[in-house]
Parts: sequence; structure tokens; C-alpha cells
Amino acid sequence: MKKVIIASTSTVFGGTYLDYLLPTLAEHFKNVSTLVFIPFARPGGISHEEYTEKVKPVFKQLNIDVKGIHEFENPIDAIKKAEAIFTGGGNTFVLVSMLYKFNLLDAIQNAVENGTPYLGTSAGSNICGLTMGTTNDMPIAYPPSFRTLGLVSFNLNPHYLDPIEGSQHMGETRETRIGEFHHYNPQSVLGLREGSWLEVLGKTITLKGDLPARLFQQGKEAVEIETGADLSNLR
Amino acid sequence: MKKVIIASTSTVFGGTYLDYLLPTLAEHFKNVSTLVFIPFARPGGISHEEYTEKVKPVFKQLNIDVKGIHEFENPIDAIKKAEAIFTGGGNTFVLVSMLYKFNLLDAIQNAVENGTPYLGTSAGSNICGLTMGTTNDMPIAYPPSFRTLGLVSFNLNPHYLDPIEGSQHMGETRETRIGEFHHYNPQSVLGLREGSWLEVLGKTITLKGDLPARLFQQGKEAVEIETGADLSNLR
Repeated sequence: MKKVIIASTSTVFGGTYLDYLLPTLAEHFKNVSTLVFIPFARPGGISHEEYTEKVKPVFKQLNIDVKGIHEFENPIDAIKKAEAIFTGGGNTFVLVSMLYKFNLLDAIQNAVENGTPYLGTSAGSNICGLTMGTTNDMPIAYPPSFRTLGLVSFNLNPHYLDPIEGSQHMGETRETRIGEFHHYNPQSVLGLREGSWLEVLGKTITLKGDLPARLFQQGKEAVEIETGADLSNLR
Repeated sequence: MKKVIIASTSTVFGGTYLDYLLPTLAEHFKNVSTLVFIPFARPGGISHEEYTEKVKPVFKQLNIDVKGIHEFENPIDAIKKAEAIFTGGGNTFVLVSMLYKFNLLDAIQNAVENGTPYLGTSAGSNICGLTMGTTNDMPIAYPPSFRTLGLVSFNLNPHYLDPIEGSQHMGETRETRIGEFHHYNPQSVLGLREGSWLEVLGKTITLKGDLPARLFQQGKEAVEIETGADLSNLR
């Protein structure tokens, strides 16, 4: 059965790396003893090695051994044989460029459809949507396409940020940007606030965490979605 | 002589469209009676016609007639024959996609190098850099390349935003994003705060407006650049 966690952020304000998700991950990765980590998004430009070292102690608490995908001779094979997959955050353009470079999109898609449990945070969540067209990141690398995994039939906007009241900044709000997206793209966009995540179990998609999410659909007013909502039919 | 204004924003907080730049534009577009406007970035998804209508009254005050590039049979020819060019803000991905679609990048580059005065605001400023790799916009369209006009030998970040003190948001700051850019790209990046602009006259590039700009260079600490500074040698 398909098992996916799509988290807005790895870290909530005042927390440590993945700590708020730990009980969820214990359940999600139950019966798993090894995990393949995809560190390609390289937040702040840290190395694949450094990023993997940061992730290891968290999963150690769940008795899961982490190996970075860069450590494997054959990355496609590593994904095929993985017991579990985690794609970390950072820059989505860099991440997607690397996934295309190593021809990994189809491999991950197939593994997840066949039941390999997947965790994404931030950029690793962005790629769970149909395209990376609603990322917040800077285009610091040029991927061959914006098409991504399509583990859900809509797009995601992690780190969703409400307009800042009283702001004197004239740049676009997140809501304006997603509105512009809908002038060119039909799919729904779910703005996931930090601390929220989607749980995908088979065909069932549920909003989890303490906060509501914000749903944007072409030609409609944006609406708030309460935690616990069933989003299985969202397109 | 090359004459370019590269403005962070069209509108400053509390102001009206282009009002803060009007005295500068009167000088910049002296002896000009017609201007070709490039509305392709379509802020908020407005039509090319609506956007052009918004621009006309501003230039009317300078006795300049505005025609949108979408009104011309042959856009390349329109740029070649233009007395002046203005590219407005909106979404940089959409703008650059359209410029490639109509094969306009070389035409604009040549016109500007040959002395046609150019004004860019926001997305229209982003494209004055070597690449659009430091835009803040969402990738809602997929351009065939991120290469842009290169009217200056560095990159620009319009609407530059300082980290918000006390923010509990865990998404990257603008400074972090530009730092990540420098892991993959060598060129300097100038963060232009709203109300600032660059004036390019021949080979001389000068920072104008009331605020300092923030300069990011690969492998160096970011520094503040005072208004009035000569940036002619920035690479």
C-alpha cells in the first residue's frame, strides 16, 4: 500500500530537526530498519555527506540506519531496493535537476506506488505534486522539466505563509503568486503551513497537524481546509 | 550611448505607479515621444491590454505615447524601431518565456546597446542581469533558458527584503537563497531595495535612490553599498 508523508517543513519554530514528526514517523516507518536519504536539495549549500550526517541521529532513535543516495554505485537500483525513502528540503531547482540527472523520478514513483514508505519535507514535499511550479525557491539551477513525482494529483506549496499584516513590502504575497500560477496551470494548489503534513495511505489523503491548510483552485476563492480533512479527491 | 534604468519596484509603499521615478524618467526619456511597452510579465495575470492601459497615463505626463508590443504585427521590428522600451514587472518566468517565444532577447539587447533608452521595473529589471536565476517569482511557466539580457555583468534581486526580525517562519531568508545561488553560479548579485534603482549611462553604472543596496559575492560576506556608488566594474 502507498504510504507517503508530505510535510511542510522539517523543523518547526523552537523545535529540533524533525522532532514534531517523530511519533508519526515511528508509525510510518514501522518494520523498517534501513532508509535511503536523498540529500540533493542541499539546504544552504551543505554537502551531501554533511546533510546525511544531520539526518542519521534522528532515525537512529527509531532504530533505522540511514544511507545517502550519493553513497550508492547505482542510485536507481538503490531506490528499487530501498526499504524506505526520505527526500530532505533545500532548493527544489537543484533537487529536481539532480533527480533528472540520475533518472530517478520514475524509479521513486514506482517504488512509492509499490509500497515503499516515503517521507518528504519542504523541497522533498514539493516534488510530490504534479509539478514543482509552486515552489518558493530561487531558480539557481535549470532542470530539464518542472514535472515532478505526482504522488498526489495536485501541487503543493510548503512553508505556506499568510500575507504579513501591515507589511510595506510591495513584492507579491504567496497568495498572489499562486493566483498567477492558476492563470497558466489548472491543478489545485495546497498551501501547507509549517507544522502541517499530508498523510497518504493507499488512495486516502488526510491533512494532519495542528493548523488548517489553504486551498487554491483555478477560478475560485481560496479556502481554509481544517486538519483531519479528507483530500483524496482533490485534483 | 547605452541608457538604462533598472528599478527594484514600479511602486513604493504609499505611492502611485512609477510616481517616485517620474523626475528621473523625464530626464531618461527626454526627446522621446513614443515608447514600446512590454507587458508580458502580466502581474496578477492581468491582460496585456489592461497592463498597457495602466502604463499609458503615467507616460502621458511626459508627453510620451505608449504602445504595447502585443499590438505590433512584427515584435522584433517594433523593438528595432522603438524610440524607447519599458518592460514592466510581474512574473519573470512568464516574461522570459514570452521573450524567447518571440525571439526578442537579442533584439532588445541590440537596441539598448545601440542607445535606445530602456526602463525595467521588478521582473523587467531581473532580465537586465546575466540570468534570471535570482528572481523571487514562482516558476509558473517553463522558459527555454534562464539566460537574460546581460545589460549589466551581474545578477539582480529586485524587491530585496531584509530578514524579518523575530520571524518564526522557517523558510529561507532572501540572503540564504542568494547564498545558495552562489554554490552554483559565480556572478555577483545586487539586492535592490524598493525605491532604489541603477542608472546605466554608457559604461557607468550608479546606484540611485534613498536606500543602500546589498551586494552578494561568491565566497564573501554580503556588504551594504551606499547610494551614489559606482558599480561599473561589478562582475
